Order: sequence, then structure tokens, then C-alpha cells
Amino acid sequence: MSNKNLRIVPLGGLGEIGKNMMAYEYGDNIMIVDTGIMFPENDMLGIDYIIPDFNYLMDKLDIVRGVVITHGHEDHTGAIRHVMDKINAPVFATELTRGLLEVKLARANMIDQVDLNTVQAGDTVNIGPFQVELFHVCHSIPDSVGLGITSPAGLVVHTGDYKFDHTPVDNWPTDYAKLGELAGRGVLALLADSTNADKPGWTPSERVIDPAFDQVFSEAPGRIIIASFASLISRMQQVANAAERHGRKVAFAGMSMVENAKMARQLGYLEVPDDLVVDINQALNMKPDQIVLMSTGTQGEPTSVMGRLSTGTNRHFDVIEGDTIVLSSHPIPGNEEAVYRTINRLFRRGANVIYEPIAPVHVSGHASQEEMKLMLHLIKPQYFIPIHGELRHLRQHAQMARDSGIPTENVAVIENGQVVEFDDGEMKLGDRVPGGYVFVDGASVGDIGPSVVREREALARDGIVVISLVVDHNTGRLREEPEIITRGFVYKHDADDLLALASKRITDTISRGNGNLEDDIQQTAKAVFYNETKRRPMVFVTINRV
Amino acid sequence: MSNKNLRIVPLGGLGEIGKNMMAYEYGDNIMIVDTGIMFPENDMLGIDYIIPDFNYLMDKLDIVRGVVITHGHEDHTGAIRHVMDKINAPVFATELTRGLLEVKLARANMIDQVDLNTVQAGDTVNIGPFQVELFHVCHSIPDSVGLGITSPAGLVVHTGDYKFDHTPVDNWPTDYAKLGELAGRGVLALLADSTNADKPGWTPSERVIDPAFDQVFSEAPGRIIIASFASLISRMQQVANAAERHGRKVAFAGMSMVENAKMARQLGYLEVPDDLVVDINQALNMKPDQIVLMSTGTQGEPTSVMGRLSTGTNRHFDVIEGDTIVLSSHPIPGNEEAVYRTINRLFRRGANVIYEPIAPVHVSGHASQEEMKLMLHLIKPQYFIPIHGELRHLRQHAQMARDSGIPTENVAVIENGQVVEFDDGEMKLGDRVPGGYVFVDGASVGDIGPSVVREREALARDGIVVISLVVDHNTGRLREEPEIITRGFVYKHDADDLLALASKRITDTISRGNGNLEDDIQQTAKAVFYNETKRRPMVFVTINRV
Repeated sequence: MSNKNLRIVPLGGLGEIGKNMMAYEYGDNIMIVDTGIMFPENDMLGIDYIIPDFNYLMDKLDIVRGVVITHGHEDHTGAIRHVMDKINAPVFATELTRGLLEVKLARANMIDQVDLNTVQAGDTVNIGPFQVELFHVCHSIPDSVGLGITSPAGLVVHTGDYKFDHTPVDNWPTDYAKLGELAGRGVLALLADSTNADKPGWTPSERVIDPAFDQVFSEAPGRIIIASFASLISRMQQVANAAERHGRKVAFAGMSMVENAKMARQLGYLEVPDDLVVDINQALNMKPDQIVLMSTGTQGEPTSVMGRLSTGTNRHFDVIEGDTIVLSSHPIPGNEEAVYRTINRLFRRGANVIYEPIAPVHVSGHASQEEMKLMLHLIKPQYFIPIHGELRHLRQHAQMARDSGIPTENVAVIENGQVVEFDDGEMKLGDRVPGGYVFVDGASVGDIGPSVVREREALARDGIVVISLVVDHNTGRLREEPEIITRGFVYKHDADDLLALASKRITDTISRGNGNLEDDIQQTAKAVFYNETKRRPMVFVTINRV
Repeated sequence: MSNKNLRIVPLGGLGEIGKNMMAYEYGDNIMIVDTGIMFPENDMLGIDYIIPDFNYLMDKLDIVRGVVITHGHEDHTGAIRHVMDKINAPVFATELTRGLLEVKLARANMIDQVDLNTVQAGDTVNIGPFQVELFHVCHSIPDSVGLGITSPAGLVVHTGDYKFDHTPVDNWPTDYAKLGELAGRGVLALLADSTNADKPGWTPSERVIDPAFDQVFSEAPGRIIIASFASLISRMQQVANAAERHGRKVAFAGMSMVENAKMARQLGYLEVPDDLVVDINQALNMKPDQIVLMSTGTQGEPTSVMGRLSTGTNRHFDVIEGDTIVLSSHPIPGNEEAVYRTINRLFRRGANVIYEPIAPVHVSGHASQEEMKLMLHLIKPQYFIPIHGELRHLRQHAQMARDSGIPTENVAVIENGQVVEFDDGEMKLGDRVPGGYVFVDGASVGDIGPSVVREREALARDGIVVISLVVDHNTGRLREEPEIITRGFVYKHDADDLLALASKRITDTISRGNGNLEDDIQQTAKAVFYNETKRRPMVFVTINRV
């Protein structure tokens, strides 16, 4: 490996490539882009969240020159405490992103040990040998940036999450001029967001939500409750604007929604007149047709405001007949079942629920195919590396790049941990470094791996049986009746016969008593349970010889 | 309850209302429509499948006069063995549906004890006081029917699953004339499929898949592997037709695909010349660009052909570079994650994977909004009851009915177990009967309820710890070191310190020895584990006093 190579390293993550964390390396210098988390899949039982496996950096911590965060979403910021726990380097982020990082670091009691620096679109930041030019991009959170990264090896453009919205809510479109200017200098490589690579056409503008909200507001007979992501500041703005147009007051429900709204108003990213906002308690005492509540809980999370409303367990307030509930969101893949279950429950409680595709109350924050092609043509890169997507998305994006005229051999579809090197203007695949993911469960980071999760799966499939025996070590006979405890295997009140049968067979096995008693009893018990139920619980046998 | 009422009873199911089983009751007579199963949701751990809770029928078994099955899909047929195990009444089904029922009953060794009767669209069957006219409907399986049910209380139309396909693959459109004729007689109530009630427009014809297949076939450099449902006979026909057009042979892979293709060919529902079909082993020895394989496994099931191909564990053959794999299907809600994971893995193994929305290789078998409105206008019912959908779909369908001119009070949105009665031409809500669902797990039907599933959830969340102690009953002291077994809690090789600490604390607790020892040790162990890991495994303590 030459020291004059630019090395691009997509660090680990779950499924999506380069989404949560990437490293740019030149000589003895590393720059990190983003520090995000992912949420576990349905079969990753009991896992709280997932962080990138950045083991690759562990013996290079002293050459990390800086960390750049492109925008304030969880999948780009959520692992900041884990990364900055190891790394001593300045962090650069735009004002709103910095505000969201501060909230996270404060919760981890790390605010004093991290060197946070506010930058803005248009700024250039020097991080070791990297000259990083930040340019504004539209996304579903304000103050998002892409990066023009100049190193001695050439200019690389890293889009971050983006879309080309001509009429964004904050009136700040993606910076076409800067993209053109970068292209004019000659771009060695483009790394671009692939999230919606299988969506034809052009992602609608955030603005299309306004008329949909107007219709909801003009038809709602009572309260309006709008659920969205706490980080979707522009949606808060749209709700506030609609409320003002229709003579309603706005209240925010749920800690993260309240905190983010407060911070965004302080920083000027959410413009809401003071008299438009009321406290949630005040709102609940007003006439139903005079208020709109904003809350979290769009993903069917049982403990969110919306989840609790759907089961009648919310502390502050309940759904009442005549409520109109708007889910201004899409289900994240894997959450569909929980989301639709929540919607059905809200209907059952008397609300009218409005969601996509019933009305266009949400749009994606990511570019669709035509925008991706536009990005390719605006930047005219020599090499192209699709990022921010599952393999299936990267393949589609790569195909678009080839269709747009980039030679096949100049397009690299890579996976997490696959290093790409630029050596004297030539792209080649480098070594593979750790590129997996790390489970976070409770206080533990990384000590739970797939083997523990597989054990959880086995426990969950057919439950467990614990058999506890006391055997006389002289006679080899049972001193007491076998004690049999089950969980998740049978409904106890119906299982007396089954457990009596198991007990009898175990007793017989002991009285025959040859070979390994533990194993024999386990086999006996498993056989009884399988024959009688066709299920295979995990069986634990403890024998005390006394 | 008057004996002259017509009672309509949507028997249990999961989420969707009236989808899997319904009862029509008049006087001392019951007719059952469909006997389907549902698949468990992601958090119903370890459950094999789910059947309707038909407890309502248990003290009325002798007045069940007949069972009608509308079509051959699992969610309308899969519980036939469970229902016919209790009921002694004739079953009526069209030829293909009957063929699929026979396969199921044969597997359960029940073929001799069930009175199966073949009927066809256009027939009228008398079942007690019910005169049932079967009319053809298009759906994603051939030989589907809807029902015109005449009882002394009036004429009810039950659509079953349907769409209005003007160019179906079998050239047999939904029977508009019969619908018009029924309408002419005056329809008391319409019960109609609501599955796609949130989909605007008109569901595309099955025929749109042909050009998509043509493009795939003309571009594929090597083998083509098409995955679909084993019951999607019309898709088999389309694949065979495309193969013939492009000079390839067809082979079927997987038992259910092979069995259903054989049966459908015998009955004439799948028209494939003998020389077009080759055995799978023969196909694997042919040149890759001369064959197309059809298999199951569209839902990311790990043990299906497609699931095994994606992990390189298929017995017969592997994915090879140049394979083109087509998923001619949609993910069933809840399966998205597993489906996309399978697609990514297939890409990783070198296949090109084509799926919706990359190309229109699948269409829905259910009516969309404009078709639903057409059905409402064709039938002109006095009353309307949306069925076959989650509550959110029924609400949308009900709104369409009101928009189409049916008075609000004549539309009933009901849930499983809610009886609807027609008394002298007036609709009213009747009593509520059991309308839940029954878990089938292994050999057990219904003895596993939500409480056992909740135990499985708890087991899966943080795993388990089994602590086994031998205590001297005279001194109250430990006779041996505590034995501690864990599963799904910690990675054993890293947990020595934790388990040593737990062992020490337990020993201390015993030496203090007051109160309930079991409880004390459990509390002690839980406290250690929570403090050290912030996780809460289930803890079992067995104490043998000797």
C-alpha cells in the first residue's frame, strides 16, 4: 500500500453500505465522515441498537485528524458517543447538526470532552491533508451538507443523503452552482446516496405536503394529531404553517419532539410565532377544533406517544372520537407490521387515521432515479462508487452510472469493509478490513454476537424446560420427584399430563441408570416432548448427587 | 334472536376480517365459507401458523349444512383439516380448488372422511335454506368464484378475493353479466374484498407481466430462475409461454411447485406441451441459456429453494455467475426485511435479481379502488359490509361505499366475531361471538396462547440464567460451588468475571440466609446481572437441600 494512495474505507454497518460511517485516508491521516447507528432487524432479538464495527481504526486512533457529520439523523449521528469515546479529534458539523450532537453527548456526559466545531455550507475546513468544502443539499432535515474533499490524490465528492427539491420548505435548494463548480475542476470520484435507486422518476418536493395538510385541516372535525420523526424539523414548520392558516394552535408532545423543536426554534431553523405554540396541557383544555398536536411514534414503537395512544396507555391524554391522526412518515422496512397494527388500533379507538397512500402526507428525503442521473451528469466524475444503500440499491445505481456513460470498469460496487484505493488517478480495490456491525444491548457494546442472538432465537422458538434432580450417589436413585419448570413451551394449566409423563420417563431412565445420566435424561425428556407436542424446547438438566 | 334472521358471522382470524372463514346462519342452518390460515406476525415467536377460532360452531356442529371454498389459496383453504376434523358436512369447490384441497387432506390422512364435491362457476348449490350461485371472478389463481347467496331473508353477494382483469391469462374475465343479473334481482347486502382499498386506480392486468418477461428473457445471458407462489398457476402459464417464445425449456423446482404444476396440468388449468418441460436434473445439465427454472421462496423463507440459493445451501444446484433471478411476487407485509435480505444475498452470489419495482414482474390479484367502486355500482346493494382486509382497509372501502351513494347507516364496518343480522330486510349488529385466532405450533392446536408467546418474548429479550445450588439442610451452607448456566444472555467466553461475581454474591446471600432463599438468590442474581450489563435475563434458581 503506497502512502500516496487515497484510501476510502466504508466502515461497518447493517445492510446499507457506507451509510453510517466512512473513513478517508491519505498517508498517515484519517478523516471520518458520519458516526451513525442502525436499528436491529426483527430477528435480532433483544438488541437495542447497532453501531459500526470501527475496529479498523483502533490502532490508528492517533492519526484521525477530524470527524465530519453531514446531517443530524440518527443513522449518521447516533454512534457519536461510542466513536468519540475512543477518538481525540475535532468534530465539524453545521449548526443544527451540532445542536443535535450536543443533546446526545450531554446525555452521555461527554459534552466537555468533545471538541465540537460549527461550520456552514460554503465553508472549507482543513482536516489533515483533506480540504473539505461543504455544500448545501436538501434532505428531510435542514442544514444537511455534502462534501467536496480535495486531497493530493484528487477531488472526491461525497453527497451524503440528498434530494434535488426545487421548492424545499426552507427555500434553500441543493447547491447546483457548487456542484457545477466542483465538476469544472474535474472530479476524480463521486460517492452518492443510493437509498431510492429502485424508485423511478423524481422524488416529490416537500412542498406537496402543504395542500394535503390543508385538506386534512379543513376537514378535521376535532383535534388533529400529527406524528412524524423528531428530527423532521421541516415537517414541524409545515404543521405550524398549516395551523396558522387554519386558526389552530400547535403543541408538541414527547420529550425528543419538545427538545428538538425548542432547539430548532432557538437556532432559527423553525420559525413559529410565540403565540402559535401552546403547552400540551393547555392544548388538552382547549376546544378540539382549535389545536394540533405533534408527536413521535410513526414506526409503531409500543412505548412512543402514538403507540401508547393506540393501546389506551398514554399518560397525558387518550384518543377521542373525532380525532384525526396523520402519520406523516413511511414505515422503515421491517416496521410495516407494527405500523399497520398501530393504525388499526387507532381506528378502533375512534380516530380517523390518514397515512400514505391515503393522502400524500409524506415524501422521501432521498433522490430518486432521475435525480441520481442528474447528480451523475452535474458532477461528471471519472469514477463512481454508489453508497448509502443495500447491495440491491447499489447495483441499480451502478447500472444508472453505466447508462449515463461512465465505463463499467470505473464503477465500483463495494461492501462494508472493502477498501477502495486511488493510486495515481487509478481506482483499484484494496484490502478488506473489518466491516461488520456491533450489537449494543443494555450496557454492553459488542460482547453480544450472532451466537448469543442465535441462542435467543432457539429459546424463543419453542421455549425452555429446566429439570432439576436430586440423586443419591450411593444408590443412584432419585431422592425426590423430578422438579420440572417450563417457560414459553406449554400453557402450564394444560400441561399436567405431559409433565407427569416426562417425570415418569425420567424416573425410569434413572432407574436403568447407565452411561452419562445428564445426556440420557436430556434425550429422554426431549423425546417425550417432541412425541407429544412436535416441539423441541431447550432442555436443561441439573443433577445433584448427594 | 329471531329464527327468521339471517346471521352473518365473520369467524376469527388474524388482523384481516372475515378473510379466512365466515358463517352464514339462517334458522337452524349454518353454511361455512372458506377455511383459511394466516401466517404469524414477526413477534409471534415460534408459532407455525394460525387458524380461525371457530369455537362459536362447536355446539352447532350438527346444523352445519355445507362448506364452500371460494378459491385455492392458503388463506382460504389451509385450515380445512382442522375444520373438517370437527364437522360432518359436504364441501363444495371448483375443480382446481378441490385438487388443492385434496392434496392437503391427503397429507392429513383425511381424504376418505371428507365429502368433497366438485362444482363450477355457473352452478347453483343448495345448502340447507341457502341457494348458492357460484360466479367466476378473476384472481391470482384460476377457478376462483364469488357467491350469490339467496336465503329467505334475501340475496347476499359475497365476492371472495377478486379483481376485474379485462385480459386475464386464462381469458376468463370476471362474470359481469352474472353480477348484473344478481343486481337486477335486488341485492340485500354486498360483502366485498377490501385488500387493496388504499390503492388508487385499477389493478393492472396479469397480462402486463408478459412484456416484462419478454424483456427479461431476451436480455438474460444465462439461466433464468423465476420464483413465485406455488399456487400462482397463471404465472406458471406465463413463464411457460415466455419460455416457448424464447426457445427455452421449463423445469419446476421444489415439492409444492412440482405437485401443483402436475395437478394443474392434469386438470387442464396449465397448458404446457410435454416437450417444453424437463426434469430439474436434466435442466441443470443443459446450456444455461436454454432453460428457465420455476421455484418457490418469494417471501425470504430460509428453507425455501430461493432462501437456500441465497445462502449457498441448496441441495440441487447453486447460483452461478450470469444467472438472472426474477421474484415474481410482492413481499407480504412483515416479510420485507427477509425478502430484501435474500435479494441482497443473491446479488452477492453473482446473480442479477429482478423484482418489483425494478420491472413489472408481478401484479396484485385484488381489486383496487376503481374496481371496488365498479363492484358497488354493478351490484347496487342495499347494505354494504367490507370484508377481507385490516380495519384500515375496511374503513377506506366503507368510505368509497358512502361516496358511491350508500347511506352511512347502511354500511357496517365490523370485526371478527361481530355478528351482523338481517331482520325483515333491516341490518343490525348482533351479538359478539369468539372471533380471535388459534395458534398452531407443532402438534398443538390452541394450547399455546398469548401468555406462552409472551414468555418466549421474555426469553428472547435478554436470555436466561439457570442457577443450581446444593445446600446442606442442617447448616444452611452451600455444599458445592453454585452451578450457573446461561443461554442468550452473554457470550460465555467473555463472561467469566461476571459469573464469578454472581457466584460470590449468591454465596454471600446464602451465608446471610434469612427469608425465602429462592427469592433472595433470584433478587441477588438479577441485581448483579442488571448492574453489570443493564440487561434482565430470566433467572431460574433450583435449590436442593440435602
